[in-house]
Amino acid sequence: MTPPDSTSARAEAQRVRILDAAQRCFIAHGFHAASISEIAAEAGISQGLIYRYFENKRAMILALIERQLAADQQSIAQTPLSHDMVEGLLATYRMWGRGEPLDRHDTAIASVALYAEITAEAQRDPVVAQVLRRQDKLTTAIVRDWLRQHDVARGAKIDETALDARTLVLRVMVEGLAMRAVRDPDQSPEAVRALLTRLIAQVLGE
Amino acid sequence: MTPPDSTSARAEAQRVRILDAAQRCFIAHGFHAASISEIAAEAGISQGLIYRYFENKRAMILALIERQLAADQQSIAQTPLSHDMVEGLLATYRMWGRGEPLDRHDTAIASVALYAEITAEAQRDPVVAQVLRRQDKLTTAIVRDWLRQHDVARGAKIDETALDARTLVLRVMVEGLAMRAVRDPDQSPEAVRALLTRLIAQVLGE
Repeated sequence: MTPPDSTSARAEAQRVRILDAAQRCFIAHGFHAASISEIAAEAGISQGLIYRYFENKRAMILALIERQLAADQQSIAQTPLSHDMVEGLLATYRMWGRGEPLDRHDTAIASVALYAEITAEAQRDPVVAQVLRRQDKLTTAIVRDWLRQHDVARGAKIDETALDARTLVLRVMVEGLAMRAVRDPDQSPEAVRALLTRLIAQVLGE
Repeated sequence: MTPPDSTSARAEAQRVRILDAAQRCFIAHGFHAASISEIAAEAGISQGLIYRYFENKRAMILALIERQLAADQQSIAQTPLSHDMVEGLLATYRMWGRGEPLDRHDTAIASVALYAEITAEAQRDPVVAQVLRRQDKLTTAIVRDWLRQHDVARGAKIDETALDARTLVLRVMVEGLAMRAVRDPDQSPEAVRALLTRLIAQVLGE
């Protein structure tokens, strides 16, 4: 029996509510120290009800990884590929440095703390590593396709090897900047802008 | 009263033993989930004795951050600044991907899991953030001075702004690659080598 739409919409809203609470708890205390009872309290939902949506904390971290991929897809689709990316990435870098979690539909790394937490967990739990790596490859494919479309649109010759290299530069740069933002938030914005300007030109294939 | 040398050497050895155990526990379970009693068991030392060396877990993470800086200084001093860095960084990238913790005297990021754990904790605990940021600036200064010496040795004109930019490129690249190694260990070594070759040339200022 298929539940009526209002029921499934309510179920989806509950699921999102639990995931939002789990995300806040993982950021605040770390994945292993955050308890299901704490996440339930944060979500304002009974612990018993939580288990109807997620078997355990691992299921929550896997759902957060998948949600991140969906957000990345949406974010990439909406971003025009141009030199304006320099200012957009600079603004994101500043928010990372202030420790503000971004809107989850906003950018590649919603919160550096959550990103670091998931990366650390992938080195502990092979199931998390497997899901993270599968999603990571999908994100790479999306970024690569987006760069390829940019080449097609500007009538450039398609060089598949160069596309791989440009995709890697963008991913290394964004993730390295996220680390820098947390570890050295006082870095001069001019130096970051200069770095972004040069690397975005590489990424654009110009 | 100054303790005799053998006593202080024994104390230092105990301290190192505890820190090694704490590092293994933080990597295995995360900072918040690792308990002092577990670290004591891992070190083979009584819990009471641990508190004579470290007031709490935070004191251990701060000591690990300081130990990392000392390792970085030693590692940078021993690394010849040349195109050979490409192969050295590629080897390090492979070890990160296999999740092997490197010898702590070996490289900038001993274990990606510990690095991620410390980064996440800096977003939770302002004291950890403060110490991490102070140490991070010292590392940046060491890297910058090392690049500057390279310029002096080859008789290049010293450009302070360009030195800032080259230092930032190196730091962003190393940290971004550490993230890539864990999240996509199957990335083709050729693509990573191509990225490193181009970026090391930028870093060398050529």
